[in-house]
Amino acid sequence: MPMDSQQKQKWKHKIHEVIYEADTPSGKLFDIILLVLIIFSIILVMLESIASIDEEYHQLLYIGEWVVTILFSIEYILRIISVKKPLKYVFSFFGIVDFLSTIPMYLSFVFVGSQALVTLRALRLLRVFRILKLARYLGASNHLKASLIASRVKIMVFLFAVMITSVIFGTIMYLVEGEANGFDNIPKSIYWCVVTLTTVGFGDIAPQTALGQLITTFIMILGYGIIAVPTGIVSAEYIRSGKQSDDKKKSLESNNYDQENDPTQHVTIHLNSQHCSNCHVSNHRDNADFCYNCGNQLHH
Amino acid sequence: MPMDSQQKQKWKHKIHEVIYEADTPSGKLFDIILLVLIIFSIILVMLESIASIDEEYHQLLYIGEWVVTILFSIEYILRIISVKKPLKYVFSFFGIVDFLSTIPMYLSFVFVGSQALVTLRALRLLRVFRILKLARYLGASNHLKASLIASRVKIMVFLFAVMITSVIFGTIMYLVEGEANGFDNIPKSIYWCVVTLTTVGFGDIAPQTALGQLITTFIMILGYGIIAVPTGIVSAEYIRSGKQSDDKKKSLESNNYDQENDPTQHVTIHLNSQHCSNCHVSNHRDNADFCYNCGNQLHH
Amino acid sequence: MPMDSQQKQKWKHKIHEVIYEADTPSGKLFDIILLVLIIFSIILVMLESIASIDEEYHQLLYIGEWVVTILFSIEYILRIISVKKPLKYVFSFFGIVDFLSTIPMYLSFVFVGSQALVTLRALRLLRVFRILKLARYLGASNHLKASLIASRVKIMVFLFAVMITSVIFGTIMYLVEGEANGFDNIPKSIYWCVVTLTTVGFGDIAPQTALGQLITTFIMILGYGIIAVPTGIVSAEYIRSGKQSDDKKKSLESNNYDQENDPTQHVTIHLNSQHCSNCHVSNHRDNADFCYNCGNQLHH
Amino acid sequence: MPMDSQQKQKWKHKIHEVIYEADTPSGKLFDIILLVLIIFSIILVMLESIASIDEEYHQLLYIGEWVVTILFSIEYILRIISVKKPLKYVFSFFGIVDFLSTIPMYLSFVFVGSQALVTLRALRLLRVFRILKLARYLGASNHLKASLIASRVKIMVFLFAVMITSVIFGTIMYLVEGEANGFDNIPKSIYWCVVTLTTVGFGDIAPQTALGQLITTFIMILGYGIIAVPTGIVSAEYIRSGKQSDDKKKSLESNNYDQENDPTQHVTIHLNSQHCSNCHVSNHRDNADFCYNCGNQLHH
Repeated sequence: MPMDSQQKQKWKHKIHEVIYEADTPSGKLFDIILLVLIIFSIILVMLESIASIDEEYHQLLYIGEWVVTILFSIEYILRIISVKKPLKYVFSFFGIVDFLSTIPMYLSFVFVGSQALVTLRALRLLRVFRILKLARYLGASNHLKASLIASRVKIMVFLFAVMITSVIFGTIMYLVEGEANGFDNIPKSIYWCVVTLTTVGFGDIAPQTALGQLITTFIMILGYGIIAVPTGIVSAEYIRSGKQSDDKKKSLESNNYDQENDPTQHVTIHLNSQHCSNCHVSNHRDNADFCYNCGNQLHH
Repeated sequence: MPMDSQQKQKWKHKIHEVIYEADTPSGKLFDIILLVLIIFSIILVMLESIASIDEEYHQLLYIGEWVVTILFSIEYILRIISVKKPLKYVFSFFGIVDFLSTIPMYLSFVFVGSQALVTLRALRLLRVFRILKLARYLGASNHLKASLIASRVKIMVFLFAVMITSVIFGTIMYLVEGEANGFDNIPKSIYWCVVTLTTVGFGDIAPQTALGQLITTFIMILGYGIIAVPTGIVSAEYIRSGKQSDDKKKSLESNNYDQENDPTQHVTIHLNSQHCSNCHVSNHRDNADFCYNCGNQLHH
Repeated sequence: MPMDSQQKQKWKHKIHEVIYEADTPSGKLFDIILLVLIIFSIILVMLESIASIDEEYHQLLYIGEWVVTILFSIEYILRIISVKKPLKYVFSFFGIVDFLSTIPMYLSFVFVGSQALVTLRALRLLRVFRILKLARYLGASNHLKASLIASRVKIMVFLFAVMITSVIFGTIMYLVEGEANGFDNIPKSIYWCVVTLTTVGFGDIAPQTALGQLITTFIMILGYGIIAVPTGIVSAEYIRSGKQSDDKKKSLESNNYDQENDPTQHVTIHLNSQHCSNCHVSNHRDNADFCYNCGNQLHH
Repeated sequence: MPMDSQQKQKWKHKIHEVIYEADTPSGKLFDIILLVLIIFSIILVMLESIASIDEEYHQLLYIGEWVVTILFSIEYILRIISVKKPLKYVFSFFGIVDFLSTIPMYLSFVFVGSQALVTLRALRLLRVFRILKLARYLGASNHLKASLIASRVKIMVFLFAVMITSVIFGTIMYLVEGEANGFDNIPKSIYWCVVTLTTVGFGDIAPQTALGQLITTFIMILGYGIIAVPTGIVSAEYIRSGKQSDDKKKSLESNNYDQENDPTQHVTIHLNSQHCSNCHVSNHRDNADFCYNCGNQLHH
């Protein structure tokens, strides 16, 4: 019956629209409900971890946990059904996150046992990763992301330099202070060195000898000096990336200065949050009829 | 008697000028006295909180407290009287602050009782909010404010990313370290994670296991790396906002380079601190006769 | 005898040249000797403060102390003699520093007494201020200074905002945590708040209640966010100040682009460290014959 | 036999190519093996320092240690043989590092003795300096290095200012807090002051008196304010250095604006990692046949 299949197809589109798009009223509503659910489930996990609250409201928290898990399961299944290529979604970053945030509760059935309960509670905690879904709602940080990517290599070189410094000074401090003063072994010494270089300074381990304190003084001033480097890098990239469009505009202005408010040739392309139901690519133009990636027809 | 009403009106204007404006000599004097009073009252509250001082000088502090409270009450009433639309002032930010900084002392009468005294002292401490009044005297920070507002969205995205990172790593650290090492529950773990990411590092909670210290090393280097992001954002915005006027000037100069000191077309508008007695809007032009917001006549 | 007076005058000039100028060989030598002496005297004071070293080498340190004191006294007297207007030097910043770094040792004679000795040792420690003399040798930091001065008002506004934030959150934390958790009084709470906002985080006082830790999380993220502000300000000022000369150069280049290495009209003025013996002003042009400030003849 | 000598020469060139160059497949392979070995040897040293692991796997770690030492020795000898001027390599930075990272194990034979063992283990730890070899693989950080070198003087002035501030406030805190509160002597006080100024804040020493906490508040706000300075310097230098090429490009574009994608006159010179076998200089042009430094012929 082709009619049925078409009906089914129509339903799929409807679900796809609601779940994957944030531009239609129903899509927006779905996103907000999902957001509230995620935050609610994280709060549940947090409350459960507080001994005094868990004792008193264990039953209530357990029920809430199951309600959230079932709702997330339904969402997960609908996501798989409504996409044309389900495997692409399943093995995408958010596909895995969605799966990981749903499965722990079901696993607690399979591995029943009084002793295993503690471990299972730990597994359930993994559902906190649901918070990663929130990242979907960021989007606005493209400029930020561009700066970070542009300065990626430099930041890597910098972090690498921090690591080398930590290893060398960690070893020196282990030799100088020794186990008597809390520098039990080199890895712990390196940990302490990173704590100091990053200006965190817990103070659980602190140099006791005069020589150790002298070296620490040097490490701290070094850390103070190099804190400037990543900041300088990101600032510079940020200013540069922000300037490229400015510069072009400026050049134009300097040629036709008489026109104060000249309509600069910036063509703003409005993108929407619609996902292609075939290849799962988003950020289509608002007036696009076909996916720019696979040519699949988009449903408005 | 219209004469009386006019006299009254004149008095109102006089008070309004003294209280709300900082350009006339009497207005300036009022502001300075108010400033000294605010600082004096904050010092009083501080001294009261020090047990040894409170014991010895309790009576003196109590009297000083009342003197300040009465003076602030008079100021509050005068502010209400001299404005044309008192409700607008009462529910404005500083209207609420003024009220909250005056009321606690009076409340200590209503809720008389030996046990309630401790709570009431706490209420009185709210008068520290008077310090917010000091914000009135900032004003000069417009450029700073503009940079912050311009980068508001980016800072929000950034802080949000910090929160997500804290929740995820807080949960991981709770699982790794557990209650034995001070990571009692997830909220406390998240608190610790923020302490570490922001490089504060109190050290009241610190990782004890090798794995915990390894993860902490990663968190700290992450924190060290991302400290660059808000700095880069604000720097870039700051430079950009400072450059807009520079650029226009530069364009002009490049056209008429022969004139070294050419009088650039910058029109500086002098604003004064006068508040409109009708709509409570400030920052009028110095030569303005009418409020730019509601058209109410301004009194010089 | 006019001859004698002239001879005396000549001597004065000689001394003035040696002490106040760093361009002649003898002046340079004097400066280096002085520098070594200052560092030597600071090390003496440091060693004296270490109980174990002071016990063993007390006599040696005491003699060294006196040698330094006498040499500094001679220098102080020569400085007064060789300047035309001694009072101007005496009440200048370095005049006061020079005096304060010499007097404590002599005072230890006047206030002889077994009990007063501890206090006198403290007075002697003030000689550490000699280190301020080192500032004389900085000089190269003019660009840095200009940036700091240009952003002075903004930094003040910023620090003021930090203070207000500290007072408000300090009071809130005092109410939330109370004396039981180390927040003994409001000033101490404010101190803790500054420790947290500046990301120092000693950990001697740390929030124990859940609410306190929640508020602390907020304070820390706030601190993390606002650490960007002074950095942004200084960066912007620094870039701006560095650009002014660049821009002029650029404008010229854009007009005569064919000349790659065109001799830009920058006139570099060489300044020297010579101080006018009359009005004590320094930074004269290298080829100047008269003080630019008072017209007094300069001796090369 | 000239033939033999030539053969030897050829071998030398082969070894030189493999060891000193990273562009040929064999050279790349050598570098990767060396890198893995370095990291492996550092992990060995770390594991050895952990008491529980050293106890159980002492024999295994000892053997691994020797394998690494012998391999590094062979590499060291090959490096000396294959260079034309071995002394230049031996006394170069990496020559010394290579030597120091190989010798400790052999020294443990010469200084045999039951008591000396602990010290010898310490000597062996110096092999961690092998990690410095990793710096060879950085290379990409030229822009970063340029910024740091350009702002070198300013950073020195800044660090010097930090030191002076620390000495003065360290002394003041020693006088205010005294030995009773952990400020045992001036050097320790200065150490504490650097800990505070750099916002590390271990908390092993913390002010206890009200006056001490007031001064600490000032120190921390000062530290918070001046953290902006090195960041501003590096940012400015970084932006400036990145702009020089941009500016030239811009000037050209403003002259020939019609050509959107005009081929700018940037001549990119491809450098390779080849080291001259005579003078040990690297970064030759890819198509160079002779060393730009000594004129020695380069072998491709």
